[in-house]
Amino acid sequence: MGIRAAVAGASGYAGGELLRILAGHPGFEIGTLTAGSNAGSALGALQPHLRSLATRVLTETTPETLAGHDVVFLALPHGASGPLAAQLGDDVLVVDCGADFRLRDAADWEHFYGSPHAGTWPYGLPELPGQREVLAGTKRIAVPGCYPTVSTLALVPAYAAGIAGNDIVIVAASGTSGAGKAAKVSLLGSEVMGAVSAYGVGGVHRHTPEIVQNLSAVAGEPVTVSFTPTLAPMSRGILATCTVKAEPGLTADGLRRVYEDAYADEPFVDLLPEGQWPSTAMTLGANTALLQVALDERAGRIVVVAAIDNLTKGTAGGAIQSTNIALGLAEELGLSTLAVAP
Amino acid sequence: MGIRAAVAGASGYAGGELLRILAGHPGFEIGTLTAGSNAGSALGALQPHLRSLATRVLTETTPETLAGHDVVFLALPHGASGPLAAQLGDDVLVVDCGADFRLRDAADWEHFYGSPHAGTWPYGLPELPGQREVLAGTKRIAVPGCYPTVSTLALVPAYAAGIAGNDIVIVAASGTSGAGKAAKVSLLGSEVMGAVSAYGVGGVHRHTPEIVQNLSAVAGEPVTVSFTPTLAPMSRGILATCTVKAEPGLTADGLRRVYEDAYADEPFVDLLPEGQWPSTAMTLGANTALLQVALDERAGRIVVVAAIDNLTKGTAGGAIQSTNIALGLAEELGLSTLAVAP
Amino acid sequence: MGIRAAVAGASGYAGGELLRILAGHPGFEIGTLTAGSNAGSALGALQPHLRSLATRVLTETTPETLAGHDVVFLALPHGASGPLAAQLGDDVLVVDCGADFRLRDAADWEHFYGSPHAGTWPYGLPELPGQREVLAGTKRIAVPGCYPTVSTLALVPAYAAGIAGNDIVIVAASGTSGAGKAAKVSLLGSEVMGAVSAYGVGGVHRHTPEIVQNLSAVAGEPVTVSFTPTLAPMSRGILATCTVKAEPGLTADGLRRVYEDAYADEPFVDLLPEGQWPSTAMTLGANTALLQVALDERAGRIVVVAAIDNLTKGTAGGAIQSTNIALGLAEELGLSTLAVAP
Amino acid sequence: MGIRAAVAGASGYAGGELLRILAGHPGFEIGTLTAGSNAGSALGALQPHLRSLATRVLTETTPETLAGHDVVFLALPHGASGPLAAQLGDDVLVVDCGADFRLRDAADWEHFYGSPHAGTWPYGLPELPGQREVLAGTKRIAVPGCYPTVSTLALVPAYAAGIAGNDIVIVAASGTSGAGKAAKVSLLGSEVMGAVSAYGVGGVHRHTPEIVQNLSAVAGEPVTVSFTPTLAPMSRGILATCTVKAEPGLTADGLRRVYEDAYADEPFVDLLPEGQWPSTAMTLGANTALLQVALDERAGRIVVVAAIDNLTKGTAGGAIQSTNIALGLAEELGLSTLAVAP
Repeated sequence: MGIRAAVAGASGYAGGELLRILAGHPGFEIGTLTAGSNAGSALGALQPHLRSLATRVLTETTPETLAGHDVVFLALPHGASGPLAAQLGDDVLVVDCGADFRLRDAADWEHFYGSPHAGTWPYGLPELPGQREVLAGTKRIAVPGCYPTVSTLALVPAYAAGIAGNDIVIVAASGTSGAGKAAKVSLLGSEVMGAVSAYGVGGVHRHTPEIVQNLSAVAGEPVTVSFTPTLAPMSRGILATCTVKAEPGLTADGLRRVYEDAYADEPFVDLLPEGQWPSTAMTLGANTALLQVALDERAGRIVVVAAIDNLTKGTAGGAIQSTNIALGLAEELGLSTLAVAP
Repeated sequence: MGIRAAVAGASGYAGGELLRILAGHPGFEIGTLTAGSNAGSALGALQPHLRSLATRVLTETTPETLAGHDVVFLALPHGASGPLAAQLGDDVLVVDCGADFRLRDAADWEHFYGSPHAGTWPYGLPELPGQREVLAGTKRIAVPGCYPTVSTLALVPAYAAGIAGNDIVIVAASGTSGAGKAAKVSLLGSEVMGAVSAYGVGGVHRHTPEIVQNLSAVAGEPVTVSFTPTLAPMSRGILATCTVKAEPGLTADGLRRVYEDAYADEPFVDLLPEGQWPSTAMTLGANTALLQVALDERAGRIVVVAAIDNLTKGTAGGAIQSTNIALGLAEELGLSTLAVAP
Repeated sequence: MGIRAAVAGASGYAGGELLRILAGHPGFEIGTLTAGSNAGSALGALQPHLRSLATRVLTETTPETLAGHDVVFLALPHGASGPLAAQLGDDVLVVDCGADFRLRDAADWEHFYGSPHAGTWPYGLPELPGQREVLAGTKRIAVPGCYPTVSTLALVPAYAAGIAGNDIVIVAASGTSGAGKAAKVSLLGSEVMGAVSAYGVGGVHRHTPEIVQNLSAVAGEPVTVSFTPTLAPMSRGILATCTVKAEPGLTADGLRRVYEDAYADEPFVDLLPEGQWPSTAMTLGANTALLQVALDERAGRIVVVAAIDNLTKGTAGGAIQSTNIALGLAEELGLSTLAVAP
Repeated sequence: MGIRAAVAGASGYAGGELLRILAGHPGFEIGTLTAGSNAGSALGALQPHLRSLATRVLTETTPETLAGHDVVFLALPHGASGPLAAQLGDDVLVVDCGADFRLRDAADWEHFYGSPHAGTWPYGLPELPGQREVLAGTKRIAVPGCYPTVSTLALVPAYAAGIAGNDIVIVAASGTSGAGKAAKVSLLGSEVMGAVSAYGVGGVHRHTPEIVQNLSAVAGEPVTVSFTPTLAPMSRGILATCTVKAEPGLTADGLRRVYEDAYADEPFVDLLPEGQWPSTAMTLGANTALLQVALDERAGRIVVVAAIDNLTKGTAGGAIQSTNIALGLAEELGLSTLAVAP
C-alpha cells in the first residue's frame, strides 16, 4: 500500500503535471481528485494525455472530499489554499503549489496580492542552503513559484560565494502553460504563436518579492531585482537570463568553479559543459534545472542562464521532490532527469 | 544485472528516444552507444536532454563495438542494417528501426528503395492478429515505419471485421522529427514554423507499400492505398486521417462496436469516448495510439482518425514493446501511457 | 475620394484582415467600424498590428451606423448577416464573409446550420466558370468559406476537363485563426502548440455541403465528398489534400496539362513547377492559391494539394477580389501575390 | 521608369525581404538578382512566396552583373561587402545589409570579427538625432544590425533626455530567421520548436559593440552594455527588454513624457498606450517598432520593451527607409505600418 495522495485542482495544468508524476511514482497511491467547475467530469475529458487515469471522476474541492489522505496537493487559484488548509488537520502533509504561503513579509504579500497574508510555510526549494533539514518531516510545504525557482537556482551560488554585488536584472521567457488553463483571448494559439511579448513589467509581477526574499536571505542583505517576464510561443519551459554585478577581481574560471562546486552533488541541477548553453527543450517533462555561466568583463557582470520546465521542476516536480524529503523517501524517487526531446 | 543493450545510431532522433526509454526501463542495462560522424563525442553534446547518460562517449558503429550485448538496437540510415546485422550472430536479438527488413515483396522493395532486398524479419507490430506469437522468442525484429504503425492500427479492425471495402485514402500530418536530424534548409525552423506542406505525394512515399502489405494481409486480398504525408509545425506526433469505403449496411454503432472490441484489451491502443477526437499532444512521449471513428453516411466512408508519437509508439516505444515480447518480459515494461502535456 | 467602406465585426480575425487589406487599397476609404461587445474600444486595443487605424473607435453594429457607405463588409457570426443585410438598402454593395447566403439548397442549410435559410447570393469565387460575369455589378456577394475556396480551386479543373470520377476525399489542415477569436480552452496556445487534431469528422463540418455544391455544379451531377478538417499549430493557412478517382486513361502529363491550362491566366492561382509542393508559408498574407498535382496510378487517384491563407484568399482577400469585380475596379487592385516569409 | 535596383544575395532571408518590399514599392524597378551557390536557379525555387518574381533567374554576384543599376542592395555574408563595394563606383548607391561598415572603431571590429576593418559608412538609422541629414544624398549606407536597431530605438530617448544612468542590461529574444538560411542541425525545426535558448552570452555577440557605439554617442560618454540574445520558436521578430539605471528623481510620468515626445513625429516608431505591451506579432512584415516603458522604483531602473520584425524594420525595411531618404523619395514610400496578424 502506497502513501495515499489527493490532488485538489486536478483539471488544471499544475494538477495534471502532479498526476503525471504521481501516476509513475512507486511510492504513491492516487486518491481523490477534485476540481471546481469541472467536478463531475471524467479526468479523461480534461487531461486526455493521462490514459491510466482517464476514467477517474473529479469531485468537488472540500475538506471532506480531501480527508483520509496522507498527502494533499493543492493546485488552486491564489487565495484558495489558506482557508482549505486550515481544515485539513495537522497530521496530513499539505503541499501548496499556490502562492499563499511563500512570502515571509506580510506587507509584501498585501502589496502584491491585495489580500490579507495567510502565513508562511516551509519553502520547498531543497537546493537552498539548509533547506533539506527544514523540509524533513514537515507537514506543510509552500512550493516556490516557477520564476523564483529558476532565478534562485541561478543566482544563489554567486551570493553564497560572495562573488555577486547588487543590481540584479532578470529577464525570463516562459511557455504559455505558466499562464494557466483559463480561456482568455490573449492566450489563444492564434495570438501567442509567432509572438514573444512582455507582461508584468516594472517590478509588478507577483514573483518579484519571492525572488528578492530568496536572494536577500543568501546575500545576507537586501538585494534589488529588476524582473521582467515574457511569454514565448511554446507550451512549457522557462529560460531565465540572470545578471548581477560581479565583485572586483572575479575571473571567468573562478566563476565557473563556484557553480561547479555548488551543484556538484545536486541530483537535479546541472552546470552544462563549457560552450553549451541551456535550452528549455532540454528539460521538457524532467525535474532538471540546467545552467551555464559567463563573466562579461566589459560590462562587469555575471550572466547566468538557466532553463527549467515550469510545470515540472518549476511546480509539480519540485513539489514532489520536497514531498519525498518531507516523507523520508529518497529525494529522487519518481522524478526523472530524462527530458522528452526533440 | 539487466539485459545488456547496445544502440547503434545513438546521436539521431530515433536513437535518442530509444535511450530515453531504455534509461528508465527496469530490465535493461545500457551498453555501447555508437554513431557515424559523431563517434568520439560525449552523448551530452548531442542528446543534452538525457542527463543521466551525458558523459557516455559514442564509439564507431562496427560489429566489434556492438559485440557482447544481449540486444542490439539499430537506428541507422536505410540500407545500413542489412550488412551489419549479418555480422551480429544469431544468438543476439537485433531490433532494426530502419526499413531494410519490413517488406516481404522484393520487387516492392526494389521499386521504392532502388537497392537489392535484404530480406524480411518478423514485423514488430504486436497488435496485428497473431503477431505476438511470431515475436515471442524471435532474434530479429523489423520495427514498423511510423506512418504504417498508425495507419495499420487505424484500419486493421475494419478489415478484420469485414466492414471495410477498398479504396483507402490516408492523409497524415507528421512532426518534423520524422524527417530526421539531417541539416537541410527545408527543415530549418524558419521554414517549418507556420507551415504545413505536403511531400511524397502520389503514392511515392516509401511507407506506402508497407501500409498496403499490412492491410492486404488482414483484408485477405490486395487493397489500394492513396497515401499523402504532410509536414506540420511541431517536433513530434502523427495524426492520420484514414478513410475507406464502408460495406453496405454498416451503422455508426456497429462501427464503434468493432473498434471497441478490437482494442478493449490492448494496453497501448485506446478508442476515445464518443465526441472526443485524438490530438497528437495527447501522446507526446507515450507509447499510446489514440483513435476515434466516424461513419460518413453521405460519402459512404468509414473515417478513422489516429494519433501517435512518431518517435515513441511510431519507432522506439514500439521497438521496445516488441523487444519485451521477444525476451519474455512483460509487454508493457518500461513503457508509459502517460504523455507530457500541455 | 475613394469608395467608402464599412466593416461590421472589425474586432475579429476576418474583420482585421479586411481592414489590413482595405487600408492599403488605393480605391477605398475606410468608414465606420463596428463590433459587438467591443463597441466603444479603440481599434488599437484589439488589432494592434494595424497602426494607421489604431485610434479609430468601434461603434455598435446597427443599420444606422452602417448607413452612408458604398460597400459594407460583414464579418459577423453565422446568422447575423441575414437580418442586418435586409436593412442596408439595395443600392449598397453588401459583402458577407459569413455563411448565411452561400448555399442554394435550403434543406442543406437547415440540416447543417439548424436555422431557416436566409437566401442565396452571388458566390464570390471569381475563378469558377462564368462567375466573373455573375459578380460584375452585383450588390450582394456571399464570400465562400475558407475550406470550400481551397477545395474548389483544387478540384474544379479536373471536373471541368472530365478527368475526375467520383468519391472525393479531402483532408485539410487549418491554422487556428480559422476557429475565430473566441476564448475557448481548446484553442489556447498551450493546447494547440505541438498538436494536430481533427474535428468535425464524418461529414458534419458545415463547409461540406458548400464543397459538394461547387463541385457538383461543375461535374454536372452530384458528387460525394468525404471532408475532414484538422487543426494545425500555426495561426494562418490551409493545406488541403484533395483526391478523387481518375478517369481511365488519364496520364500524369495529361493531368498536369489540364491544370496548366485552367490556371494559366488566373492572377491569384498558381500551379507550381513540377517537383515543388505547396506550403502554407508560401501564402501568408497573400491572396494566392498554390497548387500541385500528382497521379497515383496504383491507387487510381488524382491528388491535388493546395495552399491558401485562410484569412486572405480564404476570406478577406477573396472578398475584396470579388468586390473589385462588382465595382468595376481592376480585379487585382489592392491585393498582393507577395507573401510574408519566412 | 523606376529607379533600377539590384539585390546581391537574393536567395537568403534578408534578400527575400528586400525583394518583397521592392516588388511593392512604387519607386523601384527590380533589376539583377544574384546569389552564391544558387546562381542559375529560378527565384521561385528559393523564394516561392514571391510569386511575381518566380521566373526571375539568379546570376552570380560580381561587379559586372551588378553594374548598370542606380541602387545595389548587398545582403551578403560578413566580409563580402567590402571588396565588392569598392568595385561598384561612387555614383551608385550601395546599401549594405551586412556588418562590414557599421562600426567606427577599427579595434572593436577586429576584436569582434577577427578581420581587418573595411571602413565606416553613414549609419542607416534615420531616427537617430541628426541622422536624416547624414543620409540625405549619400551613396553609401550601412544598415544597422537587427538587435542594435531595436535596442537603440529603445534607449536613445532616455539618454537624449538625460534620465538614464549607466549599466545597461539588454536581453532580447529573436526569431530564427535572424540566424539566416544556413543548414545547421541547431536551427532545425525539431530543435527550435518548443525551445528558447541563449547564445553569444557574456558580451561576445557581434552586435554588442554596435549597441555600445550608438548609445555612447547619444549619452556623450561611454556606456556599458550587458547584452544577451536568445532564440525563440518563431520565424520572425525581436522583443528586446532594455533596462538602465534611472537618474534620481525620475517619475513614471516623466519617463512616459520623454518617450511620447521623442517619437511623436516618427512614422515608424510608436509608444503604445499605457497598459499595452509590445508583442512581436504586432510587427510581422511591417516596418514598425513598438515600445512601452515602465519605471521600476524598487529596482531604480527604467525598463523599455521594444518589438520589431527583424527582417523588416531590423533589416530590409530599415534599409529601404534609409534608401528613400538617400534618394530624396518620401521616407515612408513602399513601407507599411500594417502587420500581418494573427
